[in-house]
Amino acid sequence: MLGEKGIGYDLVRESPWAQRDEFLDMNPAGSTPVMADTERGITLIDSQAICEYFEETVEKFPLISGGAAGRAEIRRLTAWFDQNFYGDVVAPLLHERMRKRLVERVSPDARVLREAMKRANTHMDYMDYLLDHRNWMGGATMSLADVTAAAQLSVADYLGGIDWVGHEQTKRWYAGFKSRPSFRPLLSERMEVIVPPAHYEKPDF
Amino acid sequence: MLGEKGIGYDLVRESPWAQRDEFLDMNPAGSTPVMADTERGITLIDSQAICEYFEETVEKFPLISGGAAGRAEIRRLTAWFDQNFYGDVVAPLLHERMRKRLVERVSPDARVLREAMKRANTHMDYMDYLLDHRNWMGGATMSLADVTAAAQLSVADYLGGIDWVGHEQTKRWYAGFKSRPSFRPLLSERMEVIVPPAHYEKPDF
Repeated sequence: MLGEKGIGYDLVRESPWAQRDEFLDMNPAGSTPVMADTERGITLIDSQAICEYFEETVEKFPLISGGAAGRAEIRRLTAWFDQNFYGDVVAPLLHERMRKRLVERVSPDARVLREAMKRANTHMDYMDYLLDHRNWMGGATMSLADVTAAAQLSVADYLGGIDWVGHEQTKRWYAGFKSRPSFRPLLSERMEVIVPPAHYEKPDF
Repeated sequence: MLGEKGIGYDLVRESPWAQRDEFLDMNPAGSTPVMADTERGITLIDSQAICEYFEETVEKFPLISGGAAGRAEIRRLTAWFDQNFYGDVVAPLLHERMRKRLVERVSPDARVLREAMKRANTHMDYMDYLLDHRNWMGGATMSLADVTAAAQLSVADYLGGIDWVGHEQTKRWYAGFKSRPSFRPLLSERMEVIVPPAHYEKPDF
């Protein structure tokens, strides 16, 4: 979102499970993302609150646009991807493939991984359905719903949780997203030790 | 929120675990709340999206007001109560005391209940801290953060999960909330079979 709006930012890596005191002082919830605007002395917390803040303060490339009902639809889908897709797919993948490897040092549970991939498939059926009826996830124009869907999908894809076969609409939409200058730098980021599948970064996959 | 803004509404009971087809047609996520505006033919989904919609369309009693940073703080706390307080306290209480009784017909797990109450206590320490520094949870005026905190607290209190001892600030704030004409009707609602503690509905408790 910041990239699309032309807002500069530096990424700082934080491991929420470490519960660093300095981080808890910034955000008592201990969760990412947190955005510190050191110039204005403002700390922003919670993904949706951060996005609403920049939607209100930076006019370029509106991402929650349209009438009140259209904006409600964008917010519904943003919450859907950030909460349901995250909870059903991304959170179990992160737990099994990242946390268990880096923190608990045990093997992932194949049953949990299979279940997460099955749920990813159901979610992608719904994304296909949305894209059959609209140009973009949330309506006629690109919105925060697309940014959120692409962000969550990319983490699941990195962790090997996405089978693209049979999801042509979502695949085509995501291929376009991967080529955006706002998105490409995110695809070049890597987690320690964990290697993404070969197709992960390629716009043509 | 609707009460404070003077918007009329009828409550319809929905048991999300029943996954009724008609309800899934309205909201594929299968979650409450859903608001149907039959006059305008609009279906609104997701608590935050619904609140933002009415904040945008009804001027009376603004609940996400102030500058961009102040609005971000209100949204941070709304997400905190709806996600963290809900996940730490309300969801386990609902599962143990309601779902296990009505659906699974087994006894609640005392260990889970104790853990939820312990977490409620930590959350209330944070609410006390906020109210030590501000008139209301989110700042100088009453906001959606207060409405959300009171809504989540009232469900936890109904289910016997709140120990008010040692939380004078939060108790005083909540006593005021209980007297509001917007909130009193909600306190007279009852779940089948499950009886709330004697103090539940009393503004003076």
